[in-house]
Amino acid sequence: MLRVAVVGGSGYIGGELIRILLGHPEVELCAATSNRFANRRVDSVHPNLRNVCDLTFTHPEDLGTYDVVFLAVPHLESMKQASGLLKLGDVVIDLTADFRLPDEEVFRRYYKVPHEAPELLGEFVGGLPELHRKELRDADRISVPGCMATAAILALWPVADVGLLEPDVSVDARTGSSGSGASSGPADTHSERANVLRVFAPIGHRHEAEIEQATGLRVTMTATGVDAVRGVQVLCRGRFVGEVDEKLLRTIYREYYGDEPFVRVVAQRRGVYRLPEPKILSGSNFCDVGFALDTAERRLVLIGALDNLVKGGAGNAVQSMNIRFGWPERLGLEFPGLHPN
Amino acid sequence: MLRVAVVGGSGYIGGELIRILLGHPEVELCAATSNRFANRRVDSVHPNLRNVCDLTFTHPEDLGTYDVVFLAVPHLESMKQASGLLKLGDVVIDLTADFRLPDEEVFRRYYKVPHEAPELLGEFVGGLPELHRKELRDADRISVPGCMATAAILALWPVADVGLLEPDVSVDARTGSSGSGASSGPADTHSERANVLRVFAPIGHRHEAEIEQATGLRVTMTATGVDAVRGVQVLCRGRFVGEVDEKLLRTIYREYYGDEPFVRVVAQRRGVYRLPEPKILSGSNFCDVGFALDTAERRLVLIGALDNLVKGGAGNAVQSMNIRFGWPERLGLEFPGLHPN
Amino acid sequence: MLRVAVVGGSGYIGGELIRILLGHPEVELCAATSNRFANRRVDSVHPNLRNVCDLTFTHPEDLGTYDVVFLAVPHLESMKQASGLLKLGDVVIDLTADFRLPDEEVFRRYYKVPHEAPELLGEFVGGLPELHRKELRDADRISVPGCMATAAILALWPVADVGLLEPDVSVDARTGSSGSGASSGPADTHSERANVLRVFAPIGHRHEAEIEQATGLRVTMTATGVDAVRGVQVLCRGRFVGEVDEKLLRTIYREYYGDEPFVRVVAQRRGVYRLPEPKILSGSNFCDVGFALDTAERRLVLIGALDNLVKGGAGNAVQSMNIRFGWPERLGLEFPGLHPN
Amino acid sequence: MLRVAVVGGSGYIGGELIRILLGHPEVELCAATSNRFANRRVDSVHPNLRNVCDLTFTHPEDLGTYDVVFLAVPHLESMKQASGLLKLGDVVIDLTADFRLPDEEVFRRYYKVPHEAPELLGEFVGGLPELHRKELRDADRISVPGCMATAAILALWPVADVGLLEPDVSVDARTGSSGSGASSGPADTHSERANVLRVFAPIGHRHEAEIEQATGLRVTMTATGVDAVRGVQVLCRGRFVGEVDEKLLRTIYREYYGDEPFVRVVAQRRGVYRLPEPKILSGSNFCDVGFALDTAERRLVLIGALDNLVKGGAGNAVQSMNIRFGWPERLGLEFPGLHPN
Repeated sequence: MLRVAVVGGSGYIGGELIRILLGHPEVELCAATSNRFANRRVDSVHPNLRNVCDLTFTHPEDLGTYDVVFLAVPHLESMKQASGLLKLGDVVIDLTADFRLPDEEVFRRYYKVPHEAPELLGEFVGGLPELHRKELRDADRISVPGCMATAAILALWPVADVGLLEPDVSVDARTGSSGSGASSGPADTHSERANVLRVFAPIGHRHEAEIEQATGLRVTMTATGVDAVRGVQVLCRGRFVGEVDEKLLRTIYREYYGDEPFVRVVAQRRGVYRLPEPKILSGSNFCDVGFALDTAERRLVLIGALDNLVKGGAGNAVQSMNIRFGWPERLGLEFPGLHPN
Repeated sequence: MLRVAVVGGSGYIGGELIRILLGHPEVELCAATSNRFANRRVDSVHPNLRNVCDLTFTHPEDLGTYDVVFLAVPHLESMKQASGLLKLGDVVIDLTADFRLPDEEVFRRYYKVPHEAPELLGEFVGGLPELHRKELRDADRISVPGCMATAAILALWPVADVGLLEPDVSVDARTGSSGSGASSGPADTHSERANVLRVFAPIGHRHEAEIEQATGLRVTMTATGVDAVRGVQVLCRGRFVGEVDEKLLRTIYREYYGDEPFVRVVAQRRGVYRLPEPKILSGSNFCDVGFALDTAERRLVLIGALDNLVKGGAGNAVQSMNIRFGWPERLGLEFPGLHPN
Repeated sequence: MLRVAVVGGSGYIGGELIRILLGHPEVELCAATSNRFANRRVDSVHPNLRNVCDLTFTHPEDLGTYDVVFLAVPHLESMKQASGLLKLGDVVIDLTADFRLPDEEVFRRYYKVPHEAPELLGEFVGGLPELHRKELRDADRISVPGCMATAAILALWPVADVGLLEPDVSVDARTGSSGSGASSGPADTHSERANVLRVFAPIGHRHEAEIEQATGLRVTMTATGVDAVRGVQVLCRGRFVGEVDEKLLRTIYREYYGDEPFVRVVAQRRGVYRLPEPKILSGSNFCDVGFALDTAERRLVLIGALDNLVKGGAGNAVQSMNIRFGWPERLGLEFPGLHPN
Repeated sequence: MLRVAVVGGSGYIGGELIRILLGHPEVELCAATSNRFANRRVDSVHPNLRNVCDLTFTHPEDLGTYDVVFLAVPHLESMKQASGLLKLGDVVIDLTADFRLPDEEVFRRYYKVPHEAPELLGEFVGGLPELHRKELRDADRISVPGCMATAAILALWPVADVGLLEPDVSVDARTGSSGSGASSGPADTHSERANVLRVFAPIGHRHEAEIEQATGLRVTMTATGVDAVRGVQVLCRGRFVGEVDEKLLRTIYREYYGDEPFVRVVAQRRGVYRLPEPKILSGSNFCDVGFALDTAERRLVLIGALDNLVKGGAGNAVQSMNIRFGWPERLGLEFPGLHPN
């Protein structure tokens, strides 16, 4: 069994990593850190783990070294503490935004601060198995993409990759409240956050850059908070070039995702769940992708859905680890989600 | 006091008409019809009206004639029964989709059936005060637009009308469950409909036609059901022509809506409610519209929000009646909505 | 028009007072105070009031004197600042818990602090019109009861008052998130507070004391937070003495509430809304009460429901003011609530 | 591998059985029946099983015989078709209410119909491992208790069994919409069922009988529908006899449940999740039980929470099967639930 640790275990992504790693047959979770909750039981912060996890949180300074270390610290912390954090594990899987964008300038434009470890930007392989499986097999530095970016990239990539899309696409992203982490400002209370359709990023959401980088498209993205705790859905709109029909689209998606364990193509003529729906994905590592075609207008609507904390974060990280160590990709990620839910 | 009646009073739009008309100082609600609930108390179907409404439902055949008649029957019924229904009132305000599209062919394309009263299509004035106030002053046949169409038209119209938009726009509409009426199929149960982001119309939603007709734009629309009972929000995307900045947009919206009693321009730099949000609009007749500008990409995001049963239906109908009879437009529509809610 | 002011206008009860008072034909809202938001627009905190309210928040120190002053400050502040606050208005209506319990000892037991203005405890009349209408007619100091207490008292009182109940009753109260005000601790975030059935007070909830005082019963109360922003429902259980049947209960409730403008007896044999349901009460000043009878077990289940911010607070305060000044009790409180919602 | 089948696979309990059995290492799911959906893919009804389940629904008449058969048919169907259904499996696990109550008269009183297979009532062992583990080891007929009954029994049983409770207790049960199955009447639509606190059974809920039978107490139960898809919480109230303190209660619960794999005692002094909360139990087989003590009033509040479709149904059935065949009880039931959710 490999020895693994989670740095930043008290947040939502950290908690999800702990849940998944505890059920993973090939690893032993040796430590989960928290400054604020050091020496308190992990299940005092993540009550779903009562009777499942006997760990107490470790203070970051008391960490040893491990075969694999997952970084679930706040954004910007990974790059600030990079020198120390990268020493903790033979393989380091970062879930912050810090090493997702190889271009220092793009990072500065979207995050409004200079990158503090630019020399490391090139060292990280993207933790998105569907695009980077091959590089992941021997990657020691992995950077997991953002939750909305993951959904959009998986919906857009095949069609973009075969050159079927005009370069300009728009992405409408909808996200639950857990996407902003365990923060608790006045905007985050239940009374203010329940029942919302909150357009918190009408333009220029940071995940734009990740989607553009992965697909080569020019993306304008809008993000809206909806009344859900988990779940992301993206609606991507673009125009196609050449002759496109439903059959061709099915063929393309099948070719790209037919062997993928965690991408399902959901594009049916009828049925309540005929298109990707986060409602049934909570806790699962699936990303469902679907499409609709407007031949007259030569337009495509591509849809992606996932659980932002699993396939949009912790699950993607564990799937990447499974690839890195040559294990079956489904290990620890078998939960299929619930219906109804 | 004018004598008014609601045909089709047991549905959600009908119930909202009854609620508003009961509180209207210039009219007396004389009858509300229902086939299924004839002779049963109105408050047995609309329990919010207990102690407020003593009416029982009238069987449609027992209707007399009235100064104003509101048609809240199912779509396609207004045109099928047009000859009879139009005789019931000196002024008839139709809330179905039947007389919204002046062009018979467009109707057939979107509703998949031939129109059964094409000769009447030209007789109806659109029940959208912001666009048709002048014609409404002496209109005897009024057709209230769809809920999502209303939100999109009010968000797009000023900018389109001044020629600031390229003709192609996309509309991403989100709607609560009451938008589909009191239907109860397997897709509508709480277990299946709660927590959804259900893309029920990825392309070709019928309201497209209404938006195109009102704005002169070419619209591709997507509609998604969200976990709310009331509320519609639309996100419209397009490119602008010429020089546009925030100041110009504010000027345009102020010019078009500065005197409107029920349109609020909500486009702030910060704040939890900086852009239109249906959460705070339930029960109110406001349509909030806002915008975001991406100068670099020359793109506009225009946002509209309203309560689908009020400004998206019953409220718009009553506001149109107020104009028709020269009453203050706010009569009966004073409720401002709740915060938090 | 009387001149009125709201002290503590940035909270949820304060916002609701402002909303209602703005629509009240007999009063002019002259000031709403806030320390934190002084000089900022009221609608920047209560966005539902955009285009409805042009006030900015007044700093408490800048207050003048008014005909009526509503105190919507945090609990314990009214008694601490009593000397100053009571000078602000000829009539003062307090919405905190500070003057609800006439007995200093009971207050200390439930609020864990000594009362700081015990000499004033006797001066306040309870702001519950159904019980105190007569005293309210010339009351200059009014103390509005708690939201859950109001629902339980109105459900229990008639049956207790006629001596039909054994003294021991249990009260199971369920409440939405707005009941705890605009606070924002880690327990209040949407991610932690959504989807809850949170038993936050399994025993000894403070409202116990108010219910006991009003009904003369011995109450054991449990309070559970549910996934709603507004709304309170209480389920009261007790045993009856003597012969009781449904007819007798209806007679008793009719006798006590038949002329009440804001209490509806809802106890039907069938129907979706056969018993009191907060779902349809948001924004309204109704308290619905109902009952079920278990003759074999000689048990009664009494149910009450209301909007915690209206009949459970601001609405009750305004209704009390209407009585104090001899106005129709419904003034400013006509909104009936929405269906569906 | 044992060969198992689910009779009635298109409902919510049936779907949950299929999900769990597909992940169970010791059984092969050979068939799931449905009249309505015969020959259609299982994942067309349970979309969470896409890529996980390749089965199509079998018509009941095409069933063979199996080592274990689960009956997830509508209530009353198991007894009507008993002769045929019981022949299908060496071990039959019934999830309907039909064989839960050994007393024919009690059944008739609560279900308003005579029992159609009274001779079989004695043959069934209760599918509640915590109470019947020993008998389950060689049971060939197992009857799984109701969801609310399971939560109440597990909360009440230890304290009742040691004789600490006076015989009269009240049970307040709250339940999500999936508890009433995949039905779709007018009361079940999202618009009517969302945001509810619907007291659908103020007295005499059927699960009363199961709780009385298991605990020997006299129970008066009330059931309320809340705005959740999954989840049950019960609040049980009673008086204790003799000397009781927190320490004693902890000792009792530890003694009864210390070795139970799926019962957690949750009764903490502080913390957001200090008492049982269904929010974090979706998909898990845990039943959390907790308590609060009112020494002055000599009252106990006992609380239980579970996922109605798992520990309240399918999970309990699979745990019973695990016991019957001597497998580890956790097999197939490892999913711990999600936080936040």
